[in-house]
Amino acid sequence: MRRDNISMAVIRRMPKYYRYLDELHQNGVDKISSRALAEQMGLTASQIRQDFNCFGGFGQQGYGYHVETLRNEIASIIGIDRKHNAIILGVGNIGRALIRNFQFSQCGFSLLAAFDADAAMAGDVINKVPVLHIDELERFCKENRVEIAILTIPSKYAQTMAAKLTELGIKGLWNFTNVELKVCEDVIVEDVHFSDSMMTLCYRISEE
Amino acid sequence: MRRDNISMAVIRRMPKYYRYLDELHQNGVDKISSRALAEQMGLTASQIRQDFNCFGGFGQQGYGYHVETLRNEIASIIGIDRKHNAIILGVGNIGRALIRNFQFSQCGFSLLAAFDADAAMAGDVINKVPVLHIDELERFCKENRVEIAILTIPSKYAQTMAAKLTELGIKGLWNFTNVELKVCEDVIVEDVHFSDSMMTLCYRISEE
Repeated sequence: MRRDNISMAVIRRMPKYYRYLDELHQNGVDKISSRALAEQMGLTASQIRQDFNCFGGFGQQGYGYHVETLRNEIASIIGIDRKHNAIILGVGNIGRALIRNFQFSQCGFSLLAAFDADAAMAGDVINKVPVLHIDELERFCKENRVEIAILTIPSKYAQTMAAKLTELGIKGLWNFTNVELKVCEDVIVEDVHFSDSMMTLCYRISEE
Repeated sequence: MRRDNISMAVIRRMPKYYRYLDELHQNGVDKISSRALAEQMGLTASQIRQDFNCFGGFGQQGYGYHVETLRNEIASIIGIDRKHNAIILGVGNIGRALIRNFQFSQCGFSLLAAFDADAAMAGDVINKVPVLHIDELERFCKENRVEIAILTIPSKYAQTMAAKLTELGIKGLWNFTNVELKVCEDVIVEDVHFSDSMMTLCYRISEE
């Protein structure tokens, strides 16, 4: 059902659809109209239909969507029904927060290990995730099919580490360092730019 | 120079422009053409000109932009040249990471205090930010003009806390809990949805 040239705006709405549909399903909702879903999500019904049409469309006009089926179809479009191996680089506060609290498996990932340059942390286990010394990185990536690396290291090491991970065959970087990473085209970088988010909030409250 | 009805897509690009221009300025770059800026940012020159036109436009065709002037104009549009008082609720790993590492002042905010329900933390000072017990929240908000609250508390407390903060006159919430907060229209919520970002990465690597 995957199509080419789907805009990032549509792609970025898919996880949101998934979250809402999953919540509806948890709450025992069986069916929902595009209008009702639109109202809950702050979108328009026609936008929802347009978004879904990018992937072939789901449900029947007027009949509404079967919540669980739609949730599962979107899960499969996003790819969270498959398991992608991930590692995390940097066991500082953000790294620790993600290891302890983030539901990787619910997002299609399996967090295999964490790495840190601090030898004192090596051997620790946080929320069932082993912490290894950074010197183990190369061996580990060669022995395990690691697809994603999460960067929660200090900014000054970000670009060097991104280059090393690219060499090691990493397909995607989840980047929490506030650095614009330069990597080859076939590596995907998903930035979590706290400052952009905070500045956007700044703009919006200034506007009020 | 602030205009009405500027799309969120344009608004969300402004912090990125700011980051790039600030970096160029730090690197001693004096002038840049919209084409060169576009190439660096992965946008088109016409998109940049369109974005800037929403705010009245900057620079002269063909002449290029004066980096420092443009950076300052954008800073003033975003509102980071003013100081907005902020507090943070929840001193767990993410809260601590933000207090220790996030450059609030560079985003237009002044972090006055942190609050936690754990009485043992009260009295701590993290990176010059005092930690107060949550019971102090009401008094503190009445005595200080707090505009922004950062929510890094457990999800189950998020909605109740959002409602309380709204009563206390908070104008904006920076929401790190994975909860869709329901607040009155004049309160602005900026969500940091880690799961949406991770699921987007999941989609994009699955697509490769």
